[in-house]
Amino acid sequence: MSSDTGIADFGLIGLAVMGQNLILNMNDHGFKVCAYNRTVSKVDHFLANEAKGTEIVGAHSVEELCRKLKRPRKIMLLVKAGAPVDDFISQLLPHLEKGDIIIDGGNSHFPDTIRRCQEIEAKGLLYVGCGVSGGEEGARYGPSLMPGGSPDAWPHLKPIFQAIAAKADGEPCCDWVGETGAGHYVKMVHNGIEYGDMQMISEAYALLHGALGLSYDEMGKIFDEWNHGELDSFLIEITRDIMLYKDTDGKPLVEKIRDTAGQKGTGKWTAISALDHGIPVTLIGEAVFSRCLSSLKDERTRASKILAGPSTSARYQGDSKKFIHAIGKALYASKIISYAQGFMLLRQAAKEKGWHLNYGGIAVMWKGGCIIRSAFLGDIKDAYRKNPDLESLLFDPFFQKAIAGAQENWREVVSQAALLGIATPAMSTALSFYDGYRTERLPANLLQAQRDYFGAHTYELLEKPGTHIHTNWTGRGGDVSSSSYNA
Amino acid sequence: MSSDTGIADFGLIGLAVMGQNLILNMNDHGFKVCAYNRTVSKVDHFLANEAKGTEIVGAHSVEELCRKLKRPRKIMLLVKAGAPVDDFISQLLPHLEKGDIIIDGGNSHFPDTIRRCQEIEAKGLLYVGCGVSGGEEGARYGPSLMPGGSPDAWPHLKPIFQAIAAKADGEPCCDWVGETGAGHYVKMVHNGIEYGDMQMISEAYALLHGALGLSYDEMGKIFDEWNHGELDSFLIEITRDIMLYKDTDGKPLVEKIRDTAGQKGTGKWTAISALDHGIPVTLIGEAVFSRCLSSLKDERTRASKILAGPSTSARYQGDSKKFIHAIGKALYASKIISYAQGFMLLRQAAKEKGWHLNYGGIAVMWKGGCIIRSAFLGDIKDAYRKNPDLESLLFDPFFQKAIAGAQENWREVVSQAALLGIATPAMSTALSFYDGYRTERLPANLLQAQRDYFGAHTYELLEKPGTHIHTNWTGRGGDVSSSSYNA
Repeated sequence: MSSDTGIADFGLIGLAVMGQNLILNMNDHGFKVCAYNRTVSKVDHFLANEAKGTEIVGAHSVEELCRKLKRPRKIMLLVKAGAPVDDFISQLLPHLEKGDIIIDGGNSHFPDTIRRCQEIEAKGLLYVGCGVSGGEEGARYGPSLMPGGSPDAWPHLKPIFQAIAAKADGEPCCDWVGETGAGHYVKMVHNGIEYGDMQMISEAYALLHGALGLSYDEMGKIFDEWNHGELDSFLIEITRDIMLYKDTDGKPLVEKIRDTAGQKGTGKWTAISALDHGIPVTLIGEAVFSRCLSSLKDERTRASKILAGPSTSARYQGDSKKFIHAIGKALYASKIISYAQGFMLLRQAAKEKGWHLNYGGIAVMWKGGCIIRSAFLGDIKDAYRKNPDLESLLFDPFFQKAIAGAQENWREVVSQAALLGIATPAMSTALSFYDGYRTERLPANLLQAQRDYFGAHTYELLEKPGTHIHTNWTGRGGDVSSSSYNA
Repeated sequence: MSSDTGIADFGLIGLAVMGQNLILNMNDHGFKVCAYNRTVSKVDHFLANEAKGTEIVGAHSVEELCRKLKRPRKIMLLVKAGAPVDDFISQLLPHLEKGDIIIDGGNSHFPDTIRRCQEIEAKGLLYVGCGVSGGEEGARYGPSLMPGGSPDAWPHLKPIFQAIAAKADGEPCCDWVGETGAGHYVKMVHNGIEYGDMQMISEAYALLHGALGLSYDEMGKIFDEWNHGELDSFLIEITRDIMLYKDTDGKPLVEKIRDTAGQKGTGKWTAISALDHGIPVTLIGEAVFSRCLSSLKDERTRASKILAGPSTSARYQGDSKKFIHAIGKALYASKIISYAQGFMLLRQAAKEKGWHLNYGGIAVMWKGGCIIRSAFLGDIKDAYRKNPDLESLLFDPFFQKAIAGAQENWREVVSQAALLGIATPAMSTALSFYDGYRTERLPANLLQAQRDYFGAHTYELLEKPGTHIHTNWTGRGGDVSSSSYNA
């Protein structure tokens, strides 16, 4: 046995910026980490530079990495989602023993994590899919960690993960999420919510800049003010910084950035999962589609030259101060809707997949360290701690009152945006959801009548739910209802 | 060889209402059809009743069915999508010969059709996935048929399919769509558009009923008027009938129908495909989510008791006549957007899948026979016939002008709905899309700055597209950009 056998507490594979920073963070908290990377020159470079003067050690092969770890081994992958994760798992397996733990800290799609967890548990090992959020800063100084998978792994990981995680009101932003793919699922929904938050803030920017003609300095000041109230959050804070950041020529850098945002990842997966579970997560859906639209830059440029806008000016004619306040309220109300939708999705997914999720715990994990961290998540935590079985965030008295207090301004903003010709898909869909959600009788009765009219799909009566009726609306055709075939 | 060998022109499996009606339709046009059903008693019942006095023959086994068909055999499945299709294909294969054609006329998901087409072509047979729309009426008197798959099958099917299909302006609503799964893909998008149309009409109903307090007779009259103008379509026509249909007690039947609409099928698939292809098909997305929300009836009922609406009355205070006109225009403009989005999706899917789609032909197939048939599709046909490479429906002068003429009313309706508290997710998202689409510079530049700030994801400058830049926005952290890992 060589002298460096079993010297390290934790192994980490993948030395991109997130992996490097997580290792440095663990080192700060007294854990000895062994680093490995497919391109091994990166290991040496890391040890000679960022990791210089620390307790961090390196490995030049998977075998060496496994040899250097204390048992049960804890090895985290921070590699690109997809095939690389399966590749490394295959490489690791011959060197691991019963009870060892593989952790996937990448943005894996939850069905992959469910599959891998089952496969690896069948071999007597433990598997954890862990959402990691907070970007490079978070990874370095305290990320939000969302681990789920084999429950037996948690006691071994808890001391390390809770030490390195961000803290919010003294609580670590890391707790056990749930079974199999629950950790990656919650991270996915987190990212979807992040898409939504970013889209809403972009719409507020479009209104402040487009409808009110405010300068970047003025907008920086407004985001700063918002950051000291109910909108207090990391994304509002960095938006302030971005508004105020000047390029070398003294002009705002943000104004020079190309307005095309990619989407291919977790936001899209959240929207698809919402469709699969039948939960109307409309705000994230619109946020993802907004990125798609932004990426059609050339087509938009051509369209801008031929498609007419409203005949009136695109400038808001009323009181600027009041409208700025209203935009803040529209942002706040839309945000409440987005989170309410996200938690509706979590609840339904947990129900269908048999996961035991702790909603208050999820709010704590998101309250610090991660991209969507905010004061607001403290209110969500409070709501679920008061009532763990809360049916909807909107049923919580705090949020009920918050929405009621914001709604007049919210309606004004959505209404004005429509008249002024400024696209606010997220704020608008949030309001439509709110109005639909609080409507006891939606016009879907007509839709059911239509489906029965043309396809004999049957309908139910309000007074007789569960009984399916077909009406021969035209007097022609048959009375045969459509059973096995749906056109 | 028994005397009934090779006597029939066409075989059809699946005697639910759609299958029965398609057989009767083919019989009307002089084709001899052999009918088969898994539960064979249905065959005898059909022959003794609906098919009595016709040339239709039956089979009591798959073998008998295949024996009775002329070669190349043409056998259409009208069974539930999924495993039943694969089951019947397996049952058929031992009895078929090179060049025989299997047609799936159900609502199969296009990836299944792509797979089956490849498998069956590899065996020397031909495969066609054919979208069938029009419900029971359409199947009986002229459906819209959207066949795609093995191109060599088309000459054999064309005489039968174009004979039984609906006709629009003298053209059959059936033409060859494209390779492998193209037929089912186009049918899927058709259904998605149908979801959108139904949702928009439901929103118009909610506004007429909720904001204006109109009676069902008054609404019936309005839908009848709309049906004689630019909104002329099957769905508007049946909405008129539904508004005017009285229950035995003399009250409108539609008002008694439970407002919960299901969604699990093709509308959802369309939204998911849009997300996968990165095309902002927002209106169909909202239509699917609206069905999801409608199905949460109990939760909505509870929400309706505690969530406040606007402080003002839900009744529109202006001129009723003008607002009715405006609602019609909002419906029309939203419909243009929905179809523009649908064709954007078709174009992108064709590009990625290597299909050669004929957009004008698709408009003709949809113009008659099917649920979304309308005068409007004639304008779409004209647009694509004039310019087969049209980038977007909105670039066609007719639709450009149509939107320009409708937009003031459209904006007024969306704006008022927001103030009145009536949910109009489809009309609102359509307007947001229009405004985003005609905006050369969207606020996505902020979003890219945010992503670079927290995740070192880099951005491009307007002046240097293609060059990816990372800014150290805070002065802290590193200059390492995120390459292999996306948090």
